[in-house]
Amino acid sequence: MTVRLENLDYLFNPGSVAFVGATQAKVKWGFIVFNNLVAGGYEGNVYPVNPRHDELLGMKCYPSVRDIPYDVDLAVFTVPASAVLPAMADCIAKGVKAGLVITAGFGELGKEGAALEAELVRKAEEGGMVLVGPNGQGACCPANHLYPWMPLFYPRAGGVGVICQSGNILNMLIGHALDAGFGVSKAVSSGNEAQLKTEDYFTYLASDPATDVIVAYVEGVEDGRRFLELSRAAASSKPVVVLKGGRTDAGMKAASSHTGALAGSAELFDSACRQAGLVVASTIDQAGITASSFVNRPLPAGRRVAIVTGGGGLGVIAADACTDMGLEVPRLSQATLEKIGALLPDYWVPGNPVDLVAGLDLRVIKPILEALLTSGEVDSVLFIFIESQRSKGIKITEVDGQAVELGVIWDMMTQKLGEYLADLYVMARDVGVPLFVSSNFEQVGGAEPGTLGGGKNPMVYLDVESACAAIAAMSDYADFKRSIS
Amino acid sequence: MTVRLENLDYLFNPGSVAFVGATQAKVKWGFIVFNNLVAGGYEGNVYPVNPRHDELLGMKCYPSVRDIPYDVDLAVFTVPASAVLPAMADCIAKGVKAGLVITAGFGELGKEGAALEAELVRKAEEGGMVLVGPNGQGACCPANHLYPWMPLFYPRAGGVGVICQSGNILNMLIGHALDAGFGVSKAVSSGNEAQLKTEDYFTYLASDPATDVIVAYVEGVEDGRRFLELSRAAASSKPVVVLKGGRTDAGMKAASSHTGALAGSAELFDSACRQAGLVVASTIDQAGITASSFVNRPLPAGRRVAIVTGGGGLGVIAADACTDMGLEVPRLSQATLEKIGALLPDYWVPGNPVDLVAGLDLRVIKPILEALLTSGEVDSVLFIFIESQRSKGIKITEVDGQAVELGVIWDMMTQKLGEYLADLYVMARDVGVPLFVSSNFEQVGGAEPGTLGGGKNPMVYLDVESACAAIAAMSDYADFKRSIS
Repeated sequence: MTVRLENLDYLFNPGSVAFVGATQAKVKWGFIVFNNLVAGGYEGNVYPVNPRHDELLGMKCYPSVRDIPYDVDLAVFTVPASAVLPAMADCIAKGVKAGLVITAGFGELGKEGAALEAELVRKAEEGGMVLVGPNGQGACCPANHLYPWMPLFYPRAGGVGVICQSGNILNMLIGHALDAGFGVSKAVSSGNEAQLKTEDYFTYLASDPATDVIVAYVEGVEDGRRFLELSRAAASSKPVVVLKGGRTDAGMKAASSHTGALAGSAELFDSACRQAGLVVASTIDQAGITASSFVNRPLPAGRRVAIVTGGGGLGVIAADACTDMGLEVPRLSQATLEKIGALLPDYWVPGNPVDLVAGLDLRVIKPILEALLTSGEVDSVLFIFIESQRSKGIKITEVDGQAVELGVIWDMMTQKLGEYLADLYVMARDVGVPLFVSSNFEQVGGAEPGTLGGGKNPMVYLDVESACAAIAAMSDYADFKRSIS
Repeated sequence: MTVRLENLDYLFNPGSVAFVGATQAKVKWGFIVFNNLVAGGYEGNVYPVNPRHDELLGMKCYPSVRDIPYDVDLAVFTVPASAVLPAMADCIAKGVKAGLVITAGFGELGKEGAALEAELVRKAEEGGMVLVGPNGQGACCPANHLYPWMPLFYPRAGGVGVICQSGNILNMLIGHALDAGFGVSKAVSSGNEAQLKTEDYFTYLASDPATDVIVAYVEGVEDGRRFLELSRAAASSKPVVVLKGGRTDAGMKAASSHTGALAGSAELFDSACRQAGLVVASTIDQAGITASSFVNRPLPAGRRVAIVTGGGGLGVIAADACTDMGLEVPRLSQATLEKIGALLPDYWVPGNPVDLVAGLDLRVIKPILEALLTSGEVDSVLFIFIESQRSKGIKITEVDGQAVELGVIWDMMTQKLGEYLADLYVMARDVGVPLFVSSNFEQVGGAEPGTLGGGKNPMVYLDVESACAAIAAMSDYADFKRSIS
């Protein structure tokens, strides 16, 4: 293959973009994607291409890419499948560096479509152009306000890189990064992967300084050996989380008609991925949540977890989940238990999980977490904060003529907790013991999950099972990193 | 045992409530729970009991329950553990029918606590009083605006009954019912279950006409045979979803210090539960989502699922998930595929999942779903609606001097879809083929999940994996129902 991977820079940071198939019919992708490119805030030059228009969105429209009298770095295609090849020939003649083909109707349609797709690749490689797609929803690079894609959605810039053979799963994984308080470095809906494969994007993102972690949805892998080699190389420099679609017969059939993917044995693929240092997720949510878990957090040195919980039931669920996922919930030393016990009511039962027994004095939480982080007895600390739902417009009851709004008292207490946690994240980083915080109702100390510390701190988990899965994934990845160091 | 289960009516529908341990210190459960009882809107008589006060929240306060000159149906206890027994003696003397002991410090503390707990039970049974707890967060019955519990939260009335040996998991399961657009019939945090066990609440709720489905978190089962017998009897009349905590060594240890539960082998318990017709969930979210799945929806007649998806990737994930969970994604007949194909673009690849290939004409969705519901070829239909995130304050671009707000166009299209779906749910009920709708971004036709049709229609799923798990659970339960009919 003669892929000039460095030309991917022109996909994410082009000086100018030609849009082949721009139109004014509002319920067509040729309008929606084009409008996103313009309205998303991209500051480079945009050249709509459509022989049936002189002007679109107030811009001069060209009959073909050849007719554009300026340099073009990136070309986006939404014209029908039959029109892509001739338009690409124009791009090659023009010296376009990267092509983003959104148009469907290629390899996923069978033999004839696959032949047309192969021709596209041949043409692109002849001209040294990188080819993204076809049959994807587009790509984005928020740092450059560049959103040539389908959704009416311009996520913010951050450290999560996302590669998906599915546009809708791309959007969901991006949603997870945003929910966690982070943003997106680069995102690509890789579609049929006619030329550039998932592993090529891994290679690119692995050396992209803006990307902290990579998350991917993979349907088909054409060359398993190449995929694993390049994946391993990428995983050696930063965490790569993958979700595999088409693991079952029914799923494979669906994948084949979706992106023309050919899938192999799910178990083999899974274990090969793990050996290559990839973090393998089993659901979309798990992939998204696990990826963000790596941001702003040290890797654990081992598998021992201390659990501190505001409510016993969630401690039980967390202990079960940790054990299920190959983590340990070790007995704590007498000294540590005594230190903790001194802060809790008489009816506290010493142990790990440390159950805060529904205590209302939230000031004890900080010293308890500190004791565990610095104990040397555990490699990760999971704190399960219990915030209950709150009814709006709760009635105020008078006590001795004084208005009592319980929610306000609770907010004051939890706000302090938010401050404690920000301090504790610093301590956790200093001692190299990651701190994971789960809160069952979207708030810790009045802050949305992940926003605690303005996205500078680790994410907060909405369910304990996800937090445990993240600890296990990070422990696995830490093992891989140690194995190659 | 001499449990008068009918007295549980007095827990949920008391004419009067004595609150033993009411206080005015705002950061004490004796205030918070008492305040919730009053502020939640309960219309019966409330009698605070505390020898150190003459008046609380504007109500006359009594030194003991004996001193209340009126009938008392329910007594709530937040006094310290050592004070519960004498207060209960007063209640027995007074003829109180139900006792709700929130106080902790009993069986979960070991031998001494267990002895005190046994004494409580003896005393209660002597007087024919049902005993809820100790060591729970309380209970609620929204239809009676009755919320004698810890959270500052008054969920609305509806068909989901919730029983939990953990207060925080109770709140989370209730949250799921509300998110699904439904409400709560009765909810109990059963705590240490000194007298009334999970299976007793099952028995009660099984004959409660306000309860459509029961969901429970179980930590320990004292008498496995009794649990399974009563569970089976309950499951014979309505669906019962259970989540088991303490499945692993670490979890069991935590459960034992949380509610004094003694746990057995997880696998044995699981399989026995399934044989008894219970639906066994493996995470808190799954328990909550699966329970609401049963509301307003017919049971499937078999395991064949048709998947219709707005995006290929989610179709692949759904096909994988269905297969993993023992469902079939069968090939559709040529006739059905042709009927569907006539509505879709040329580049559609016939198959199941039916991929709508990112088409923008949402009018085809209704006839496609109708064709599948009435095909006789499947037992459930899963429709995966793709709604992407939407950036707020999206810029408006001018076309021919006309303002274009793409979001508005999209809203108009999806609003129609909301109407279609309401019709389709009626058809689904008529033909006895349940319709499951998943939407990845909290909206279908502008409606919040579950609110489509004002809570009268089935819930909408936020992730396809949960929808598939629900279909599998409902198929299992349908099998059980057929096996006993």
